[in-house]
Amino acid sequence: MSVLFEKICIIGTGLIGSSLARNLREKGAVDRLTGVARSQENRDVMLANGIADEMHADARLAVQNADCVVLCVPVGSMAGMVEKIKPFLKKGVILTDVGSVKARVVQEILPLIDGTVEFVPAHPVAGTEKSGAANGFSSLFEGRYGIITPCGRAAPESVAKVRAMWELCGMKVEEMTPERHDTVMAVVSHLPHLIAYSIVATAADMEEETRAEVIRYCAGGFRDFTRIAGSDPIMWRDIFLNNSQAVLDVLQRFNEDLTLLQKAIRKGDGAFLEKVFTRTRAIRRDVIDAKQAQTENEKILLQKH
Amino acid sequence: MSVLFEKICIIGTGLIGSSLARNLREKGAVDRLTGVARSQENRDVMLANGIADEMHADARLAVQNADCVVLCVPVGSMAGMVEKIKPFLKKGVILTDVGSVKARVVQEILPLIDGTVEFVPAHPVAGTEKSGAANGFSSLFEGRYGIITPCGRAAPESVAKVRAMWELCGMKVEEMTPERHDTVMAVVSHLPHLIAYSIVATAADMEEETRAEVIRYCAGGFRDFTRIAGSDPIMWRDIFLNNSQAVLDVLQRFNEDLTLLQKAIRKGDGAFLEKVFTRTRAIRRDVIDAKQAQTENEKILLQKH
Repeated sequence: MSVLFEKICIIGTGLIGSSLARNLREKGAVDRLTGVARSQENRDVMLANGIADEMHADARLAVQNADCVVLCVPVGSMAGMVEKIKPFLKKGVILTDVGSVKARVVQEILPLIDGTVEFVPAHPVAGTEKSGAANGFSSLFEGRYGIITPCGRAAPESVAKVRAMWELCGMKVEEMTPERHDTVMAVVSHLPHLIAYSIVATAADMEEETRAEVIRYCAGGFRDFTRIAGSDPIMWRDIFLNNSQAVLDVLQRFNEDLTLLQKAIRKGDGAFLEKVFTRTRAIRRDVIDAKQAQTENEKILLQKH
Repeated sequence: MSVLFEKICIIGTGLIGSSLARNLREKGAVDRLTGVARSQENRDVMLANGIADEMHADARLAVQNADCVVLCVPVGSMAGMVEKIKPFLKKGVILTDVGSVKARVVQEILPLIDGTVEFVPAHPVAGTEKSGAANGFSSLFEGRYGIITPCGRAAPESVAKVRAMWELCGMKVEEMTPERHDTVMAVVSHLPHLIAYSIVATAADMEEETRAEVIRYCAGGFRDFTRIAGSDPIMWRDIFLNNSQAVLDVLQRFNEDLTLLQKAIRKGDGAFLEKVFTRTRAIRRDVIDAKQAQTENEKILLQKH
């Protein structure tokens, strides 16, 4: 294939950044790939496996002459990073990101950049609960959806290039406004994580003996929540702080629904419970029909054999 | 190996019942295996694959001369089933079950049986969100925990035989009181299912467009909840109706914890969020250390290759 970018710089080579890098490398989609990581461990993984040509601790050194810069840092660090690298960016550079929150981050970044930067906010909706470059893998994005939220600060060709990059990684790419993105993500991702964190915290607070039993019998359902609640604490702290309104809105709806179930249990209203549980089963079928049921871990297992 | 039971009867050959049957058959642990299923489909699967020697729609015909009868029906149907089969049970039969709720079910069954029945309540803590004989598989119990809750109505040898049966299926077997079982399960299984049902119901209630987007982007975390909320509605209705007090107790604790997180988001208290999310991550590590992290689907994939 033709080369997508002569030089790409990936800032933050954790799970998402390193998986993107692996994919672009495998496909031969970039001539040069530089990465930025604070930890020596992540820098070593990227170099030892030949994923990156250069790794830097200082982003200002890594972005120079890059045609595309991808921000893969927690959303709370995005604007600070842009401020830092701005003077070192090539004229006409495509600046994009992978953040799970869009509206507030876009708002913060816009005043920091001028017309020489092509800004294309994006969010590949994929991931696992694991962090770090060592846990990245190139098929992470395969078959998943990516979202681009154009903000009027990039030429159509620049938006098309970011789209092409994610499509190359196997994603189906959609466009929507930053605000719409944040509402949808509050439902599909942020609320589920909040709930999982909360239920695992409830178990963590229990007396020692019960906690040991909770671990032992977690196959009863709890295990799935621990997986989600094992996600990166800083990343998720930033998501909740930056998408607070949408999260609080959907949390209120959730609380209302949970209260109805609680009341049905207290009253012994089996008909109501059965009705709700039957309706939710239909949603599971929709997820399977949309080919989104397979987890990333299952994808790795299938790939390995 | 020596034969565990000359004739075993499994009442309800759904996911759990059929998986148990497959396992006992593979291991040659029973001479004769009869099953009971209401649906023609489940009866056909059990016969076509040689898992059962006979399948019946009427449990009274199936239990005759059985040395062991395993109740694998929803907990709300257990007592009714015992009442029905009681006159047809062999003297000295071992009667056991796989129900997810113990205290109330044991209470209901005890007055229905006399000294000629060896009653050993049990619960193999394993399962998937799928129902029916066709979805059963023999390795379902491998490496998982099984719980026996003796109720003083069986000789030690009978308890030992039920333990041996589950150990043969690969389970680690523990004993506890019915009440303790129900408290632990409320935390590790019943609350997670209630929460998953609730969050998926919240999404189901959203306007058409949002619902389509929720399916599309479910890899962001929502997917795991749809898996759990795809579980059998009747089975779960009965669990909540029969373990209501323990579920309501743990639900209250959960609500308190969720309210604290909600308040932290509203106030922008990042330090609190980070602290909670870091603590929950430790629990995930405990689950992995206890070798309970692998899902049943992952086990199947690994087995196939």
